[in-house]
Amino acid sequence: MPLLVVGSIALDSVETPTERRDDVLGGSAVYFSYAASYFTPVRLVGVVGEDWPAEHTELLMDRRIDTSGLEVVAGAKTFRWRGKYLPNMNDRETLEVHLNVFGDFNPKLPEAFRGSRYLFLANGSPLLQMRVLDQVPDAQLCVADTMDLWINIQHDELLALLRRLDGIVLNDSEARLLTDDENLVRAGHRVREMGPKFVVIKKGEHGAMFFSRDETYVMPAYPTPHVVDPTGAGDSFAGGMMGYLAECGNFDPRTLKTALAYGTVVASFNVEAFSLERMRQIDRSEIDERLEEYRRMLTF
Amino acid sequence: MPLLVVGSIALDSVETPTERRDDVLGGSAVYFSYAASYFTPVRLVGVVGEDWPAEHTELLMDRRIDTSGLEVVAGAKTFRWRGKYLPNMNDRETLEVHLNVFGDFNPKLPEAFRGSRYLFLANGSPLLQMRVLDQVPDAQLCVADTMDLWINIQHDELLALLRRLDGIVLNDSEARLLTDDENLVRAGHRVREMGPKFVVIKKGEHGAMFFSRDETYVMPAYPTPHVVDPTGAGDSFAGGMMGYLAECGNFDPRTLKTALAYGTVVASFNVEAFSLERMRQIDRSEIDERLEEYRRMLTF
Repeated sequence: MPLLVVGSIALDSVETPTERRDDVLGGSAVYFSYAASYFTPVRLVGVVGEDWPAEHTELLMDRRIDTSGLEVVAGAKTFRWRGKYLPNMNDRETLEVHLNVFGDFNPKLPEAFRGSRYLFLANGSPLLQMRVLDQVPDAQLCVADTMDLWINIQHDELLALLRRLDGIVLNDSEARLLTDDENLVRAGHRVREMGPKFVVIKKGEHGAMFFSRDETYVMPAYPTPHVVDPTGAGDSFAGGMMGYLAECGNFDPRTLKTALAYGTVVASFNVEAFSLERMRQIDRSEIDERLEEYRRMLTF
Repeated sequence: MPLLVVGSIALDSVETPTERRDDVLGGSAVYFSYAASYFTPVRLVGVVGEDWPAEHTELLMDRRIDTSGLEVVAGAKTFRWRGKYLPNMNDRETLEVHLNVFGDFNPKLPEAFRGSRYLFLANGSPLLQMRVLDQVPDAQLCVADTMDLWINIQHDELLALLRRLDGIVLNDSEARLLTDDENLVRAGHRVREMGPKFVVIKKGEHGAMFFSRDETYVMPAYPTPHVVDPTGAGDSFAGGMMGYLAECGNFDPRTLKTALAYGTVVASFNVEAFSLERMRQIDRSEIDERLEEYRRMLTF
């Protein structure tokens, strides 16, 4: 089943304790799309400036990602983010953000995308996410990501959005901020009580937690010794998860759990190099292989 | 198989964001013994002062813990620790430490304990742990805990101890400190290369990681919404783990993995109340029930 994603497309500059890359391909919708493309056809909606290298679009198209929703704004610049990872490679500092074209992003979905059934609202304001939702009347599964920024400055809009979502994916610190509860198990269920049928809390190197009315579980991150650049880990996690759900065409509890495992595994590849460098090297069989390894790891 | 443990016995004063307890039963060997007693007969070696309430000894004896190695020093005081948990209930601050009798602790094992095959060296200096090891010539499985303090002030002694151990259990921050490596997967294997056949890194609310020559895996913590007091979580984890190994009488890879799961589950009960209050309420069947729930949680 085709999977629609709307979110940021960026040129990232990333510093780690040992290396640095400037203006590499990034953005939530890019990481998400690329990860999801191993599972299902992806429809990408986003905006870039005229500085956007055409080769990036080609890279996405090479993985059958439908880029017809990619808007190029003449005379403007692509969203840019610069960040620096602390030695633990889990925490990071944002050094610069230039919203550029993303600041005025008002997505108009191509006609062919409006009938999408599976939808992911990647990084963007709740207002923007809501506007997208309004354009996809037949959506069966709507999942969104959010950020501390929106919890702080668009709190009411976020609460309104939550009531319309099937699922939400957010970081541990964001779940704590949104619920004012330090215990993640309670926080997860409190977010769920705000509307969505399920909540996924991402804990970075510590994995992810899942909450529905009937289930609470934790999945650890796949333990990789090669953490080169964690940028996009959360988005590729969501991409693997949503991609698998769209591939299956359902989101029953069992499928959701396997989807979380796929997300975990895809994210573990993503962090092994800068930008999409590692993801470009793998195919579905390597993902499936690592999934089986992960399954064995959790079997006792 | 009987399991011998040597370590601290304490009267703890604990502050959490919402509650406070003074002079409650604590100490690494106490938490460890109590947890292990659900699986196997435990032999406890430790020292207390004359302020030690006899009811604490009775509580341990009620669980068939052999307290004949419990030394009571007249005219002296029991080891005291006072700590305060931060709102996240995972990090804590030590407010006061009075070593008292534990400062001069020089354990002499009762004759009947010297033939023990399964041995855990709970909190104590590497020098002290080594002296215990010397008294247990027939040990088949020697596992120790350590602390940042010893990594800093008895580094060489700790390295010498590591070469004589089968297994070591330590915190994530301690593994990073000992190896000067921020990546826990690499750090775990580096500790293993220092001597022990296996290494367990405890990550508090984020679970535990296991490392042997052939295996690397992570087990998440059991997600409990009722974290009242995390004191002793690591020791009860080790107690559940070692208790199960002693019960099985082997430590092959498969048994070790189940042992880690038992440790995880036992620790999840321990944190649900102060001191041993929650542990006192449970029996083995509740532990087994939660173990099955944990197994289901990790199955996809």
